[in-house]
Amino acid sequence: MLKIANYEFQSHLLLGTGKYSDFNLQKKAVEASETEILTFAVRRMNIFEADQPNFLEMIDVDQYTLLPNTAGAKTAEEAVRIAKLAKASGLCDMIKVEIIGDQKTLLPDPFETLKACEILLKEGFIVLPYISDDVVLAKRLQELGVHAVMPGASPIGSGQGILNPVHLQFIIQQATVPVIVDAGIGSPADAALAMELGADGVLLNTAVSDAQDPVKMALAMKLAVEAGRYGCAAGRIPKKTYASASSPTEGMSTVES
Amino acid sequence: MLKIANYEFQSHLLLGTGKYSDFNLQKKAVEASETEILTFAVRRMNIFEADQPNFLEMIDVDQYTLLPNTAGAKTAEEAVRIAKLAKASGLCDMIKVEIIGDQKTLLPDPFETLKACEILLKEGFIVLPYISDDVVLAKRLQELGVHAVMPGASPIGSGQGILNPVHLQFIIQQATVPVIVDAGIGSPADAALAMELGADGVLLNTAVSDAQDPVKMALAMKLAVEAGRYGCAAGRIPKKTYASASSPTEGMSTVES
Amino acid sequence: MLKIANYEFQSHLLLGTGKYSDFNLQKKAVEASETEILTFAVRRMNIFEADQPNFLEMIDVDQYTLLPNTAGAKTAEEAVRIAKLAKASGLCDMIKVEIIGDQKTLLPDPFETLKACEILLKEGFIVLPYISDDVVLAKRLQELGVHAVMPGASPIGSGQGILNPVHLQFIIQQATVPVIVDAGIGSPADAALAMELGADGVLLNTAVSDAQDPVKMALAMKLAVEAGRYGCAAGRIPKKTYASASSPTEGMSTVES
Amino acid sequence: MLKIANYEFQSHLLLGTGKYSDFNLQKKAVEASETEILTFAVRRMNIFEADQPNFLEMIDVDQYTLLPNTAGAKTAEEAVRIAKLAKASGLCDMIKVEIIGDQKTLLPDPFETLKACEILLKEGFIVLPYISDDVVLAKRLQELGVHAVMPGASPIGSGQGILNPVHLQFIIQQATVPVIVDAGIGSPADAALAMELGADGVLLNTAVSDAQDPVKMALAMKLAVEAGRYGCAAGRIPKKTYASASSPTEGMSTVES
Repeated sequence: MLKIANYEFQSHLLLGTGKYSDFNLQKKAVEASETEILTFAVRRMNIFEADQPNFLEMIDVDQYTLLPNTAGAKTAEEAVRIAKLAKASGLCDMIKVEIIGDQKTLLPDPFETLKACEILLKEGFIVLPYISDDVVLAKRLQELGVHAVMPGASPIGSGQGILNPVHLQFIIQQATVPVIVDAGIGSPADAALAMELGADGVLLNTAVSDAQDPVKMALAMKLAVEAGRYGCAAGRIPKKTYASASSPTEGMSTVES
Repeated sequence: MLKIANYEFQSHLLLGTGKYSDFNLQKKAVEASETEILTFAVRRMNIFEADQPNFLEMIDVDQYTLLPNTAGAKTAEEAVRIAKLAKASGLCDMIKVEIIGDQKTLLPDPFETLKACEILLKEGFIVLPYISDDVVLAKRLQELGVHAVMPGASPIGSGQGILNPVHLQFIIQQATVPVIVDAGIGSPADAALAMELGADGVLLNTAVSDAQDPVKMALAMKLAVEAGRYGCAAGRIPKKTYASASSPTEGMSTVES
Repeated sequence: MLKIANYEFQSHLLLGTGKYSDFNLQKKAVEASETEILTFAVRRMNIFEADQPNFLEMIDVDQYTLLPNTAGAKTAEEAVRIAKLAKASGLCDMIKVEIIGDQKTLLPDPFETLKACEILLKEGFIVLPYISDDVVLAKRLQELGVHAVMPGASPIGSGQGILNPVHLQFIIQQATVPVIVDAGIGSPADAALAMELGADGVLLNTAVSDAQDPVKMALAMKLAVEAGRYGCAAGRIPKKTYASASSPTEGMSTVES
Repeated sequence: MLKIANYEFQSHLLLGTGKYSDFNLQKKAVEASETEILTFAVRRMNIFEADQPNFLEMIDVDQYTLLPNTAGAKTAEEAVRIAKLAKASGLCDMIKVEIIGDQKTLLPDPFETLKACEILLKEGFIVLPYISDDVVLAKRLQELGVHAVMPGASPIGSGQGILNPVHLQFIIQQATVPVIVDAGIGSPADAALAMELGADGVLLNTAVSDAQDPVKMALAMKLAVEAGRYGCAAGRIPKKTYASASSPTEGMSTVES
């Protein structure tokens, strides 16, 4: 079970809602993923523009927990403003703080993110910051009281998978709040690895939306997250340099005899 | 569906039967894996020693396809003798040819393996050789008529995962018979990756038998193989160096306005 | 040439001075490295305790640029105090800001580091912060005016090499000040890779001090840094998935004829 | 010193002679590399076509040991014929056996290679086979009496570096003859790593010939091979998961006091 603040989820897979060209396909992918949490960019959702189509109108929103994000924000001030707008809409009291500090890599700004989290926590939000895999940054944010940390695996939409499993594992080992790996997941093996390392959840978007078959990939991701979670709980074998026979035949009755 | 010669399987996960200390636990793990193919070392199974306990007696063998292997053989001659012994027992006409050429790494001998396959094919066996990830070796073996090739991911029991995904992918791309990744799988992410690369199946033993919780790990591996298979079929996104926004906000109505 | 503020160096290899058990051996290693910059922990050097041996007394300090560091500091305040102490000793106006935020991983604290840099820059120091490989952190620090950034390759003394070449390359590509890879270098190949990626320098300590033969390893590191620097300037070939003959024989007169 | 049969070399870098567009540039690159061994495709060199330009005419061949190779051969028979042609030319009694078994990956054929080596050894050649990184194949060839083994790092000309350092290290650890890493080296860091792993030499071509500045890259490779060789001899530090302070300050007089 994934617990974020007072919310509880059976699924450990979070899905973004951007980039799909076809709302029907998207709906099927969302269903195949069995996700319970959908994140969306407040700035992108035309909440207040009734004349434009919107994916959230397509689905039974009561079935999902909506996680608005502050995509598009470059400063704490902008992020706070977007978060308040989301809250005012009554959709959710959770907010994914996403403040980009570099447009080429879309990597997050640690300083503006910390500042925004501080303000939003005081305002009573449930705060989930998207961060780099800086271990001390994760530590400082959880000391501040954030409800989860969301380190990126690699740049948003790059599909490069987990560039630095060592940093990710350090973040997980010292975590006192859920760690949700966000951004950069490219394939089911990436998602499984994140969970095996001990992550509490995986958030992805492009890996499913831009796959050749988004519905099938959504299913694959669901299975991969479960596989990784069971794999983590099952306690994997250590890696060894040399071989160790799975069919030892020493001292066995030999067929030669 | 995995097709090997005239056999057809729903499951793409093959399980070894060595190394378990507790037959009841092993039985539960085998069930959780939903495997349809169990491999066992002919030399290890005390087929002809009725007084010794044997895992195969514990299970309903009709439910599984048994894949005897020649573990313990160091020469083609030994492997052929073991294969004939297996066939004589009436258990199966398939044989996994495993001829170790180096005791420290348990890596296979390409020359003795080719020789054994040649003989066994003439004798009418369904032949699945365990091999290194040498691309031309795989090619030569399938030209010879083997029914599947089983390249190792890393040394047997090492849990190092797929050391060389490039070679594995080359083998898969040129394959005209099923490619089953054998040996070295350590975790669900490894199994998922093998399938994503296009493998037709994954054979593992130690990763489950030596996990802290073999039953849970067997379940994890089942899910991982499915995840990887769907992931392969779904067509993953390409890896990109730079980021690509999953929540593009360019040209969006800004909240600042 | 490596230029940091008004300093110019022929060597691109910086050496730490900790961990050696034998000052004579250390002196030979330093000489073999041909480094021009030696970093030392102000707190460790018994500058004001004349009765204790000190490596800096062993060498002709005029031959080297001394780069005091703030190792041991956990806050900006402590780091600033150490930096001022170093400056007061008259040894150097450069300071490597090292503020550890996690004792297990010895990874740096981005917030205290930024704060310390801000203060020290105002006080006229030449400031070189040791940082994680957070891309936006590097950007913010150079906007602040630091004279170089020193991202870690992996945890101090771990010898794991460059855990995340992608982040390192992002830092280098956007850099307006020298990038010196600091911490985690384990072998000459690591040092060469750092320079190939475009780093301006490499700082290491344990890789030499704890090698079985520190003098030989110092020489190896000197050569590796040069190799990597020339390699970067020479423009390496792109990586290709498939082969490309270096001895193409198509259309050649064949020996068979 | 690199010893192959009765030959002794100071340099551990072997250079291919293909792919250069400009013989003058090539000559400078060869000189910068300080190589003592030049390999060339017998089929490519127009030994018997006096009217065509030939790089070997450009250099003082007495300064180099020429290592003819059988590039273009697809069978043992072809390779043997090419080797005999090379010997007849009086250039050298060494032969690099290169028999390609797959045109897309240019990976070598283990069976034809073994067969050719067997014949050429009987004919008194000094035999250096280019092979995959199959550990048992390397073992069988050295049992046969070859004078060095030349495992590929990755496909010829691909610049992917060492795809499988584990297999390479296994080959080196069991080797009784020199191990020369051949094919796939892309950058100085790759060359350094090969030597650090304990290789006796590195053979490359494309990495230098196709670099933007071949002469500078040749120098870089020379330095890298030396760096890796000294690094190997110096005994590198082990890799550790966690950090270990290079500037320990525990128990130090604190500046705060």
